Amino acid sequence: MTVQERLAALRGEMREQGIAAYIVPGNDPHASEYMASHWCEMQWLSGFNGESGTVVVTMDRALLWTDSRYYLQAGIELKDSTIELMRESDIDCPSVAQWMCDELRITNYELRIGINPEMWSVDQFSAISRQLSEAGISVKSVDLIKPIWTEGRPAIPSDKLYAYPADYAGETVESKLARMREILEAKGEGLEAKGYALIVSALDEIAWLLNIRGNDVEYNPVVISYVVLEADKCTLFVNPGKIDSAAQNYLDFNNIDVQPYEAVFDYIRGLQGTVFYDGAKVNEALYEAIKKPHPRVLRTATGSPIEQSSSPSQGEEKGANAKNIQSPILVDKAKKNAVELEGERRAMRLDGAALTRFFKWLEETLDKRQKTKDESPLTEWDLMEKLHEFRAMGEGFVEESFGTIAGYQGNGAIVHYAATKEHCAEVSQEGMLLLDSGGQYLDGTTDITRTTWLGGRIPQQAKDDYTYVLKGHIALLRARFPRGTRGNQLDALAKQYMWEAGITFGHGTGHGVGHFLGCHEGPQNVRTDNNPTPLEIGHIISDEPGIYRTGKWGIRTENLITVIPAKQTKQTTTEDEWLAFETLTLCFYDTNLIEMSMMTEDEIDWLNAYHVRVYKEVSPLLNEEERKYLARKCAALEI
Amino acid sequence: MTVQERLAALRGEMREQGIAAYIVPGNDPHASEYMASHWCEMQWLSGFNGESGTVVVTMDRALLWTDSRYYLQAGIELKDSTIELMRESDIDCPSVAQWMCDELRITNYELRIGINPEMWSVDQFSAISRQLSEAGISVKSVDLIKPIWTEGRPAIPSDKLYAYPADYAGETVESKLARMREILEAKGEGLEAKGYALIVSALDEIAWLLNIRGNDVEYNPVVISYVVLEADKCTLFVNPGKIDSAAQNYLDFNNIDVQPYEAVFDYIRGLQGTVFYDGAKVNEALYEAIKKPHPRVLRTATGSPIEQSSSPSQGEEKGANAKNIQSPILVDKAKKNAVELEGERRAMRLDGAALTRFFKWLEETLDKRQKTKDESPLTEWDLMEKLHEFRAMGEGFVEESFGTIAGYQGNGAIVHYAATKEHCAEVSQEGMLLLDSGGQYLDGTTDITRTTWLGGRIPQQAKDDYTYVLKGHIALLRARFPRGTRGNQLDALAKQYMWEAGITFGHGTGHGVGHFLGCHEGPQNVRTDNNPTPLEIGHIISDEPGIYRTGKWGIRTENLITVIPAKQTKQTTTEDEWLAFETLTLCFYDTNLIEMSMMTEDEIDWLNAYHVRVYKEVSPLLNEEERKYLARKCAALEI
Repeated sequence: MTVQERLAALRGEMREQGIAAYIVPGNDPHASEYMASHWCEMQWLSGFNGESGTVVVTMDRALLWTDSRYYLQAGIELKDSTIELMRESDIDCPSVAQWMCDELRITNYELRIGINPEMWSVDQFSAISRQLSEAGISVKSVDLIKPIWTEGRPAIPSDKLYAYPADYAGETVESKLARMREILEAKGEGLEAKGYALIVSALDEIAWLLNIRGNDVEYNPVVISYVVLEADKCTLFVNPGKIDSAAQNYLDFNNIDVQPYEAVFDYIRGLQGTVFYDGAKVNEALYEAIKKPHPRVLRTATGSPIEQSSSPSQGEEKGANAKNIQSPILVDKAKKNAVELEGERRAMRLDGAALTRFFKWLEETLDKRQKTKDESPLTEWDLMEKLHEFRAMGEGFVEESFGTIAGYQGNGAIVHYAATKEHCAEVSQEGMLLLDSGGQYLDGTTDITRTTWLGGRIPQQAKDDYTYVLKGHIALLRARFPRGTRGNQLDALAKQYMWEAGITFGHGTGHGVGHFLGCHEGPQNVRTDNNPTPLEIGHIISDEPGIYRTGKWGIRTENLITVIPAKQTKQTTTEDEWLAFETLTLCFYDTNLIEMSMMTEDEIDWLNAYHVRVYKEVSPLLNEEERKYLARKCAALEI
Repeated sequence: MTVQERLAALRGEMREQGIAAYIVPGNDPHASEYMASHWCEMQWLSGFNGESGTVVVTMDRALLWTDSRYYLQAGIELKDSTIELMRESDIDCPSVAQWMCDELRITNYELRIGINPEMWSVDQFSAISRQLSEAGISVKSVDLIKPIWTEGRPAIPSDKLYAYPADYAGETVESKLARMREILEAKGEGLEAKGYALIVSALDEIAWLLNIRGNDVEYNPVVISYVVLEADKCTLFVNPGKIDSAAQNYLDFNNIDVQPYEAVFDYIRGLQGTVFYDGAKVNEALYEAIKKPHPRVLRTATGSPIEQSSSPSQGEEKGANAKNIQSPILVDKAKKNAVELEGERRAMRLDGAALTRFFKWLEETLDKRQKTKDESPLTEWDLMEKLHEFRAMGEGFVEESFGTIAGYQGNGAIVHYAATKEHCAEVSQEGMLLLDSGGQYLDGTTDITRTTWLGGRIPQQAKDDYTYVLKGHIALLRARFPRGTRGNQLDALAKQYMWEAGITFGHGTGHGVGHFLGCHEGPQNVRTDNNPTPLEIGHIISDEPGIYRTGKWGIRTENLITVIPAKQTKQTTTEDEWLAFETLTLCFYDTNLIEMSMMTEDEIDWLNAYHVRVYKEVSPLLNEEERKYLARKCAALEI
């Protein structure tokens, strides 16, 4: 089937259902960052293979919205597809909803559009329905891809799931379930008597809650499944083929019922009492099952589901009382316990050893090639493979935690740059290399960026940029702050020095990180936007300011840091609890790039102490030659 | 009438109206910070004379909520009143709404409480009605003070209003009205055709919009009035006695209709089309007039008014379409024009001269008293009066912009400390003095805090504290940042150094300041909370970090600063517009209190350059002796 044939088949379905437009977002039913190919409907329909995009199909047009990372690729892949490219970063590019309002208003089709409710979170679905309904367009929940993507559709992954021992997780399933039930029962009087349930659909939340892991998607060791947690039972909805006898024993031991993956909808329809869900994660189809109306759930004129306080007695037949809450699992998972943190520290030592070996190899390789005038290609891709090789030597290494970004020279300035084997730059002994990578180890997840100068004279601007970034990076990780402080209050600490020079960057300064789970997790972060979540003891975040000069270089410096209690000082005037960060990442910085005149004594003291610690913790994992190399890299800077 | 008699009379009214409890907040109908005594119902009813408090009266109890500033005073003034004191800062002190829910639930009175809708903003009224309605308590809009406060109630002030020349305001009324109409008309299609109006009730917004000033309340040069702005006219509702023939000519010239103050309600009831109001400022009685229901406006079960999109056709007879918006006057007023800023700069020179004279007088007076062993009392109150005297010498000085805080030694640690002639400390040639004061000049409003050491050995901790505060103060006023940055993003810049030492403070770091208007204005500020307003060119804010040691001292350092465009630097990587601050305040710091080893070269350079500027700008206003004193205070610090 060509893309044009797929579009024609979709339009056939649309005609039959009386639908003027169909939207295919790049989502899966679990609000995942990394998706199983079974759900790559956007890619299948359009032939575009980028990771992010939304396709809209009307009777006479088809469009793909994507971001600047993919303009080139989309341009090539959409050729001959009849699909028009919508460049999200263009100032005059309308949003999907806005475009539909404008486009459909002037057509004569019945103003009803279709979307698959499994592919939209409740909150996303509400937002788009509201916007469209204001233009008189109604939304029909319907899956039009299923009937047409019948051949060659990859199955939902059926890899085995495995128990993740409490020795690594630091807490038993029993204890986690009990705590979650306590939290839910505190949300209302008499909940236990009337019955309640929590719908869990985010795969990392399920993995954390049940202490299970799997191999269903790239970079994240999760298991495709749903969970319904009730007062007296906990049900895992999962493909039975994923459970071997060891896993079955483990689930039995923990009193976790198992039902087929697809059974979740009927199960939820049967729930009574209060059903909690996190509207940012739980998909609209699950929500509709809570409200169990056949036909479809009623919505108000403004598109918001009629809910929150509707109880069975108030008209909707047998409907449970749906309550949109922030997932208590999300909140608890973010606060790492002592065992998880100990695992992270071990993973960091392994990661530090891998990076030491990598940088040593890179230096030596570039040197040798220079001396021997070896002009065979050495590319960004080769570097990515080599780094993977060194990481894979680490005990308990499972996979990378995301696709390595190796951005040489100007490529480093492209945020989210992804070299491929086919499209990548050659690397030589000059200029700047930005390297952002991470590993999934059985006891921790890592994410680290180092920027390094490969050779040649260092321009003063490169030193200045590197030093602004480093000073900001150090200011954030050394911050002390009263409990209750949010990440957005600390964001400017990492930017203040580059701001003085009129420089800033567009990405977040820090994201949450999971424990042998997602490399990006909430609810905490360090960004400019008004995230209300305060930083809490046990949170892990990245600290990664950067400066990007188009066509020249990208500089980013990233450590993972965790929130710890800070000691009271003699000076303290208040009863506040004080927090600070512990740096988890263990890898030297490229001190050649530091403009020493811009550094304060305090900053140099911190850097020297950090390098002493890196050497002390990483060197035991190295051989003698590697230790010498590391010692050189960790040599103290003179003030 | 004693307080007990007043309470009895109120209860009589309550009984007649079937009301279980009546709430008297310390508000006026204009959401003013400083109130005319006509509206001091809370003070009249309770006998408590603090500036902030809420009284709740039930059939058998009466309570006053107030904050820690007033516990002592309230304890004394409530004696024999039967009114119980509720200490807001106590952890177990319920909110007014919470207390009512708890208290009334167990009584047998009809569950209806009364409040005067003129004394509550729409947003406040909504919030409390929602909370009470969840406990089954309904709210009745009724004024029960009016029938009982018949004797000795001060009239609404009837001082003359006067035109504020465009030479000072920097913009004509015509231009302001035209711009506001444009902003409103942009809020919906066809608004002009269907009719629209903006209700303005905040007194500083009215003064700014119509370029008028008055003397109706202390500290703020405003005129008690309302304004209704429509497409084709603008009506000022004001006591006619306030308008002399000059004012009448001015209003006529600007096509401003005048109606009596009380006529605003009937006028609003007659409006059609869309009526805009700012729910944070406009009182509930005005809102009810927009919706013009007799009887009272309908509310949903959750207490929120039924509105936002209700149009005349949708049932409510003749009701206009009420729209809650952030006041466009508030937003525009905050962005000072070039003329206003020039006025501010002139006012700052006058203020600087006054403070120079004051500190010179204080030093000399303390010296002389020491030498002559003069032991006659010299108090905080004397200092406040003397400072007022020096300020009053300034050309165009009108009044103080708030009550001066002169906090000697431990009194400086009491935030919002207010010495009175009767209760104030004696000052001698030792220890710390915190002085926070400001003036209203015809062309600008000032607000400055300086902390100074009056004599004796300076403890190291005092130097450390002073230097943490000063470093934070300098970091904020020297910040450069991209356009779009909010005050809460910059807050930590002022706190970072004291945070390192485990010190913080509970008040805001910066508040907006008006131009010959309120010393506190929105929407911008620098605080920890998530205020979404970005800093804009022309905003004036204070920069006032502090450290408070109970029983020892309070240290606060405050300048006013204004947002200006920052030059692009050669380093700039982005298309962002860059902003920075210009320091407006012109007064030396007490350099004896600086711990030089904690200061960076950059900070000292800034301080020296600032002192050069202070001398240059203020000295022309001084006599020779004063200039010599100022030169000594502004002497360069050695690095």
